[in-house]
Amino acid sequence: MFPKNAWYVACTPDEIDGKPLGRTICGEAIVLYRGPDNAVAALEDFCPHRGAPLSLGKVCDGKLVGGYHGLEMGCYGKPVAMLGQRVRGFPQIRTYPAVERYGFIWVWPGDAAKADPATIHHLEWAEHPHWAYGGGLYHIRCDYRLMIDNLMDLTHETYVHSTSIGQKEIDEAAPATKTEGDEVITSRFMNNIIAPPFWQMALRGNGLPDDQPVDRWQICHFTPPSHVMIEVGVALAGRGGHEAPPEAKASSIVVDFITPETETSIWYFWGMARDFKPDDAELTASIREGQGKIFGEDLQMLERQQANLLAHPERQLLKLNIDAGGVQSRRVLERWLAQEQVS
Amino acid sequence: MFPKNAWYVACTPDEIDGKPLGRTICGEAIVLYRGPDNAVAALEDFCPHRGAPLSLGKVCDGKLVGGYHGLEMGCYGKPVAMLGQRVRGFPQIRTYPAVERYGFIWVWPGDAAKADPATIHHLEWAEHPHWAYGGGLYHIRCDYRLMIDNLMDLTHETYVHSTSIGQKEIDEAAPATKTEGDEVITSRFMNNIIAPPFWQMALRGNGLPDDQPVDRWQICHFTPPSHVMIEVGVALAGRGGHEAPPEAKASSIVVDFITPETETSIWYFWGMARDFKPDDAELTASIREGQGKIFGEDLQMLERQQANLLAHPERQLLKLNIDAGGVQSRRVLERWLAQEQVS
Amino acid sequence: MFPKNAWYVACTPDEIDGKPLGRTICGEAIVLYRGPDNAVAALEDFCPHRGAPLSLGKVCDGKLVGGYHGLEMGCYGKPVAMLGQRVRGFPQIRTYPAVERYGFIWVWPGDAAKADPATIHHLEWAEHPHWAYGGGLYHIRCDYRLMIDNLMDLTHETYVHSTSIGQKEIDEAAPATKTEGDEVITSRFMNNIIAPPFWQMALRGNGLPDDQPVDRWQICHFTPPSHVMIEVGVALAGRGGHEAPPEAKASSIVVDFITPETETSIWYFWGMARDFKPDDAELTASIREGQGKIFGEDLQMLERQQANLLAHPERQLLKLNIDAGGVQSRRVLERWLAQEQVS
Repeated sequence: MFPKNAWYVACTPDEIDGKPLGRTICGEAIVLYRGPDNAVAALEDFCPHRGAPLSLGKVCDGKLVGGYHGLEMGCYGKPVAMLGQRVRGFPQIRTYPAVERYGFIWVWPGDAAKADPATIHHLEWAEHPHWAYGGGLYHIRCDYRLMIDNLMDLTHETYVHSTSIGQKEIDEAAPATKTEGDEVITSRFMNNIIAPPFWQMALRGNGLPDDQPVDRWQICHFTPPSHVMIEVGVALAGRGGHEAPPEAKASSIVVDFITPETETSIWYFWGMARDFKPDDAELTASIREGQGKIFGEDLQMLERQQANLLAHPERQLLKLNIDAGGVQSRRVLERWLAQEQVS
Repeated sequence: MFPKNAWYVACTPDEIDGKPLGRTICGEAIVLYRGPDNAVAALEDFCPHRGAPLSLGKVCDGKLVGGYHGLEMGCYGKPVAMLGQRVRGFPQIRTYPAVERYGFIWVWPGDAAKADPATIHHLEWAEHPHWAYGGGLYHIRCDYRLMIDNLMDLTHETYVHSTSIGQKEIDEAAPATKTEGDEVITSRFMNNIIAPPFWQMALRGNGLPDDQPVDRWQICHFTPPSHVMIEVGVALAGRGGHEAPPEAKASSIVVDFITPETETSIWYFWGMARDFKPDDAELTASIREGQGKIFGEDLQMLERQQANLLAHPERQLLKLNIDAGGVQSRRVLERWLAQEQVS
Repeated sequence: MFPKNAWYVACTPDEIDGKPLGRTICGEAIVLYRGPDNAVAALEDFCPHRGAPLSLGKVCDGKLVGGYHGLEMGCYGKPVAMLGQRVRGFPQIRTYPAVERYGFIWVWPGDAAKADPATIHHLEWAEHPHWAYGGGLYHIRCDYRLMIDNLMDLTHETYVHSTSIGQKEIDEAAPATKTEGDEVITSRFMNNIIAPPFWQMALRGNGLPDDQPVDRWQICHFTPPSHVMIEVGVALAGRGGHEAPPEAKASSIVVDFITPETETSIWYFWGMARDFKPDDAELTASIREGQGKIFGEDLQMLERQQANLLAHPERQLLKLNIDAGGVQSRRVLERWLAQEQVS
């Protein structure tokens, strides 16, 4: 149960560098590649000739050339040439709206007539030279909503990520959750605490002492279909917390794009955007490595949780205050799904 | 089709040393751990908060702490604490009767009201200082009754274990099978034969000549739900066989606890108890290694037999005299299953 | 949907050298072995005693001895002996007609009463000393008809095998397809072209220049149930092509026996028969290695094509002129299948 009339992150540019990529998104087998003028294109991954996946072919002069019998596809899903054949009467295949923006390739797996690139989630930091970004991709066998729950309730950091970003003060601070239109925001503020290891590293990276009390914040923003941006950071205690001046804090945005593959599996694009030392590529790499390890700790938990839920579909789960972010996000999604049904 | 109102071996103590263990027994996903005062506890492996498996958590002060959001479970399936939460209204989860006895953890996957620890299969040797025990665990994809058949008809030793304990004299000696209440006993006596390699080793281990004719015996005891204890041994020929004095024989008890995981898979706890040189740890280790190799030879056969039977559910198998032990054991099980239905 | 009243290649003699082989053919689990006088025998791979696969047993004096309890099977599916048992009343199991011929073991998975060894596909080269043969076996998860399509349209060589036998002149030469009774023949002639790498190697192997224009041919012969023999070769340009004298050409027969395992998997026996330097074992080995690599390139394409077709059973595929060989072969098969239904 995922919206199909929505923009999802399909891949990153490096994944279609010089070759097509086959990826299933919201149940649709799609081939992504660079067409004429390097513009991204997305077609059904199904050759109209004999059904072979087009993603096993190659890209020549902006055309996708089938790897089995050489049918050349144009980027609008139209066969344009085949050695020794007239292709005029060949059936067209489905094309998906695709846009490259903010360093990601976005695809719209639903009704193409409704796709408006203006509605792609705006990422201010992605276009700003003061910011740097690093991230990665995990494939996880779970419903995309379990990952939304995970990110909208950071209580789990204390248990899943106990050696890096977890600390019991997170659990002790009650979160506040609100919905603004389609956006759900859940936030936690923990004042006058000791920074956990990951944030001690970030403080040092930003030239700040790592042994002083800090004010810590986590502000999770869910927007449909499945983006979660989390403002996170620590400031030296009493300097204004989230509002402290840049020289008194270390902060960043945790970036999460959750793209359903099937009902019970996802492509999880994770990353971190920061507005300090944006040109320090080594720092970007070391943050990326650290985040990759931390986020990798969630995989087994989510997959085993999914297996448990599939085995016990009748069970009602609890909805505590800490679950409000996930619960309200699911409500927004239900609204979107209901709208998609009638429209 | 396995009895659920029965005591099964769930694990060995080393498997819950300092951490919880998740294991499916008779179709029930169970987490086993040491609760207060180190007493064993067994709960559903399903956190009432969000459905994550509790077995991914840890044990702190006798409480099982969920690995996702830190819900603390008491050993009676009752949530007892969670940072920042009042747990009073949280639903209880199912608890399973569990007992530690004879060096094993026993669990009762059925109706807890019917569980009486006094009915746990009595293992006299397990409490006697003259005896030593060594064993291991295999996971096998077969119906637990195929393993009962296997152990109640040792004819297969000649073919599956031809280099260690098999010899054609086994097949030539007709077995005698009888049922005493719920117990099925099938026995074979082979007199004045040459000991096969494993028993030659045992004779030497017991300070006896390995090149003399011996009298060999195999007395298999099935008791429900799925325990098979096999008295095995060789005595110097003419000294009384099974009844020979200790200094004229090498003997032991093959210990088999077969715990259904699903209808077509088992946890197979195998081992050997012996009443000679009980303090010789090296001997225990070498017997364990030898037995592990021999018993490992059955795995492929049982799994492939299971696959064949699943592919041909309509086939009638033969019931020869050598199969009487398995056939009669299945009858006892059918009686147990029928009783479980009505009660 | 495969004919069962037909001779299929089941295995090669080396696969039953000294031990039985279990192999599923057209959905039938079969054990193949050498019975009395080394004659091949094929039985159900299901012991009538307890259902274990007979292929886990061994062959002793032409009898197949079960690996679990030692039941000895005669080659007509009749139990003939078992230690300590009278086997007279034991049920017989199914036997399959099996014949060793032309260096292959052939089996008839259907109605034994209809099996006539005289209808085994005749392989003239296999009995002629001027010819040599080398080949191999691949297991592929695809419908056997996808492999027939593949072999009856060599257009794919240009894309799948671009570095060895592919060249765009194949695609530019329109194929001619005809049906003669049950045989379908599709042929392509490409005159005055440059030989691709594989054929340059073959020209050198035959003592001919590799840099001269050549006339190339491909004549694919399908015969049911699923044999495809392809006459392939190159001759120095203008010397008569396919009809050129031996000293002006390099030619061979690509041999393909496609044996369905299930509806969506096959045992693919591939090889090459040549009538030059038949005694050069090193040449046989190097051709075999080269062909193995080339034919291995088709595996992923066929398996992914199969997955695509299973995901989209409603799709109509194109039937171009290049597909005529496959299309007409499927028509012959439909006729065979219809006959099998009524008879």
